[in-house]
Amino acid sequence: MKAYLISIGDELLSGQTVNTNAAYIGERLFQNQVEVLKTAVIGDNEESILAEFSDAINSADLIIVTGGLGPTHDDVTRKSVVKFFDSELILNNDVLMDITDLFTRRGREVTPSNKDQAFVPKICETIRNYSGTAPGYWILKDKKIFVVVPGVPHEMKEMMENFVMPRISNILGDEHRKSHTTNLLTTGIPESFLFEKLGSIEDLVKGGKMAFLPSQFGVKLRITSTGETEEEAKDKLIEIEQQIRSIAGRYIYGKNDETLESVIARLLIDRGLTVSVAESCTGGLISSRLTNVSGSSDYFQRGFITYSNGAKVELLHIDEDMINKYGAVSLDVARLMADGVRAVSGTDIGLAATGIMGPTGATQDKPVGLVYIGICDDKICTARKFKFGEDRLLNKDRTAQAALEMLRRNLLGIPYEE
Amino acid sequence: MKAYLISIGDELLSGQTVNTNAAYIGERLFQNQVEVLKTAVIGDNEESILAEFSDAINSADLIIVTGGLGPTHDDVTRKSVVKFFDSELILNNDVLMDITDLFTRRGREVTPSNKDQAFVPKICETIRNYSGTAPGYWILKDKKIFVVVPGVPHEMKEMMENFVMPRISNILGDEHRKSHTTNLLTTGIPESFLFEKLGSIEDLVKGGKMAFLPSQFGVKLRITSTGETEEEAKDKLIEIEQQIRSIAGRYIYGKNDETLESVIARLLIDRGLTVSVAESCTGGLISSRLTNVSGSSDYFQRGFITYSNGAKVELLHIDEDMINKYGAVSLDVARLMADGVRAVSGTDIGLAATGIMGPTGATQDKPVGLVYIGICDDKICTARKFKFGEDRLLNKDRTAQAALEMLRRNLLGIPYEE
Repeated sequence: MKAYLISIGDELLSGQTVNTNAAYIGERLFQNQVEVLKTAVIGDNEESILAEFSDAINSADLIIVTGGLGPTHDDVTRKSVVKFFDSELILNNDVLMDITDLFTRRGREVTPSNKDQAFVPKICETIRNYSGTAPGYWILKDKKIFVVVPGVPHEMKEMMENFVMPRISNILGDEHRKSHTTNLLTTGIPESFLFEKLGSIEDLVKGGKMAFLPSQFGVKLRITSTGETEEEAKDKLIEIEQQIRSIAGRYIYGKNDETLESVIARLLIDRGLTVSVAESCTGGLISSRLTNVSGSSDYFQRGFITYSNGAKVELLHIDEDMINKYGAVSLDVARLMADGVRAVSGTDIGLAATGIMGPTGATQDKPVGLVYIGICDDKICTARKFKFGEDRLLNKDRTAQAALEMLRRNLLGIPYEE
Repeated sequence: MKAYLISIGDELLSGQTVNTNAAYIGERLFQNQVEVLKTAVIGDNEESILAEFSDAINSADLIIVTGGLGPTHDDVTRKSVVKFFDSELILNNDVLMDITDLFTRRGREVTPSNKDQAFVPKICETIRNYSGTAPGYWILKDKKIFVVVPGVPHEMKEMMENFVMPRISNILGDEHRKSHTTNLLTTGIPESFLFEKLGSIEDLVKGGKMAFLPSQFGVKLRITSTGETEEEAKDKLIEIEQQIRSIAGRYIYGKNDETLESVIARLLIDRGLTVSVAESCTGGLISSRLTNVSGSSDYFQRGFITYSNGAKVELLHIDEDMINKYGAVSLDVARLMADGVRAVSGTDIGLAATGIMGPTGATQDKPVGLVYIGICDDKICTARKFKFGEDRLLNKDRTAQAALEMLRRNLLGIPYEE
């Protein structure tokens, strides 16, 4: 089954609203092995809508339209559906009841423009809306499925989950269960290095697919395998994953919805260990990431933002001469900060970052993007140098991610250097 | 000028990535009065890409393509551009230098797959990439502008701001300057309250337009005015803005690209004041926001993440009996934390937050989303109660925003309570 999504709304074209609906529907279809050929975003304009409907119905089996069903003058999707299918509007009493009930619950009178929404295209089966006024449409014509749902995200989601996806799943039967997907989350290795390290992708995925999805936090590898049976597809995926792990396992911190901090949380809790953080250049971001996990008070009790040299000396008890000798942004000071925060906090591990985030603050031998991250436990006390880019906020994100990755590697005994 | 956007990437169709690029470009074009006819999202597939290029060039004057320029096997945009324009790939030495420089700065060897990115379609003018490896393309053919930029958001934005938008603006000439847009940034007031407070929008904008754009950080008001001349449009906009400020001025912290932390930075620097922060529930996020501004070391030298009660007592010198009496999440402890951090840091202002971010940690009388924020200076020492929602990460964002807003109000002498 091939799908075509149409998102209708001037606010999407002018960037007022980000099209999260298409991402949501795309993901639900992808999970059910329905391939999305295209998503078209068009304005509230009958002519464009009709042209897009034609393109869609000529190229796909399933068309899902969102938006333009509201009660105001600029909503023309309903009219376009009537015209496209050469249908007419008829009053649907169930929908009228739903609308009346909704207004009664909110203690308001039904407005005429809302009452008008109970008129639906005769050709469609109505998808009821329990939290808004516009009903959705399910149209089956010439073996094509044509679905129209409101653009309000929670109304769209309700209809997708309770009506559209169960029906599609039913129509697909068992057919769609023959493929499986997983996402391996890597960090600390650039996309091109990972690509070269993995060698021939074709050999690796054996008829499956692999995509590289990079961001400032790392590269996500999305792997899809297919097989004659569900079991076969799953087994193949496990085999591919094992092979990738044997080549690049040290860079893989998690899978699918995991985050680096949630993986670290599990490791710390399992081992009964605690960590404290001293941050200069990241200004609190590393600690904030660590406390994004519910229950983080089990392993994180305190952190220090030592932005100035004075703060480093007073709070972390770093010898001022060392700062004067090596500079606040140095391998030595990063190590001393990690050691200091561990000592003053009495934790098992101390983690620290110091660097130049830019755009100001660079010196002749210390450019923007230069970062040192220190980590100390009861056996080892060390620091590592990093060189990131020019953008302050991206540099903060990259530094926090690299610091957390050093913590993960410490917990698993993986060497810090690549 | 009519535009057509094409976003390329399997990850967009399968919903792994939300298409924020199209929203960004749409907004920038909208601000310059360029109408976006359509956005098409298609996969990394040469056939679909070529078909979409044809549709686009037949219906619009300006085509902006994002994505599919990476170094791996699944990036086919460059190949498609070469085919579509019947061009060929040639080595661009500037691009090769940029790529080599980038890798040298990061202390890495250039890989063959990255070197290959220096080959660009002969027909294009290259848009250089200063923070990634893939260059962009600017192609002018048969009076149509065809632009290709990478899908990585910050690389795309850099090219749009520094190359594409200035050129387009130039081509448009003065024509498009007859309308003006500004964004007023508010926080601390819900969308519906702001809407009711402002009264009749039509009366307010006098033929212009106003949109309410809400997020967890506040409501952005986008106002557009038009006039016969540039001057007239500008004057109208100033008048509208003044009227809005007279009604809801206390909630407006800035305009357009400003952030709450950049506004605060200016206020602190102007007054020569310093601030320190003690964070419990936000885990470092408030300090991280304050240090997002370059030069923040002028007013921020240190912060404390006092996640445990022990840390509050030891680092901020809060009387343990007070914590036992009122609980760590209380108005009194928030005030004592702000007072304590100010005293131990020797700053002009102390700011503190304590709360229950969820999903765990609630008690019978202290639900998830309950937050207290304290602020102290040399004249006043107080705290305020907030009730946010159920989502941990949204609650952290909202708490940090509310704390910074209390700091802004403190600096401007605006009462903390609405």
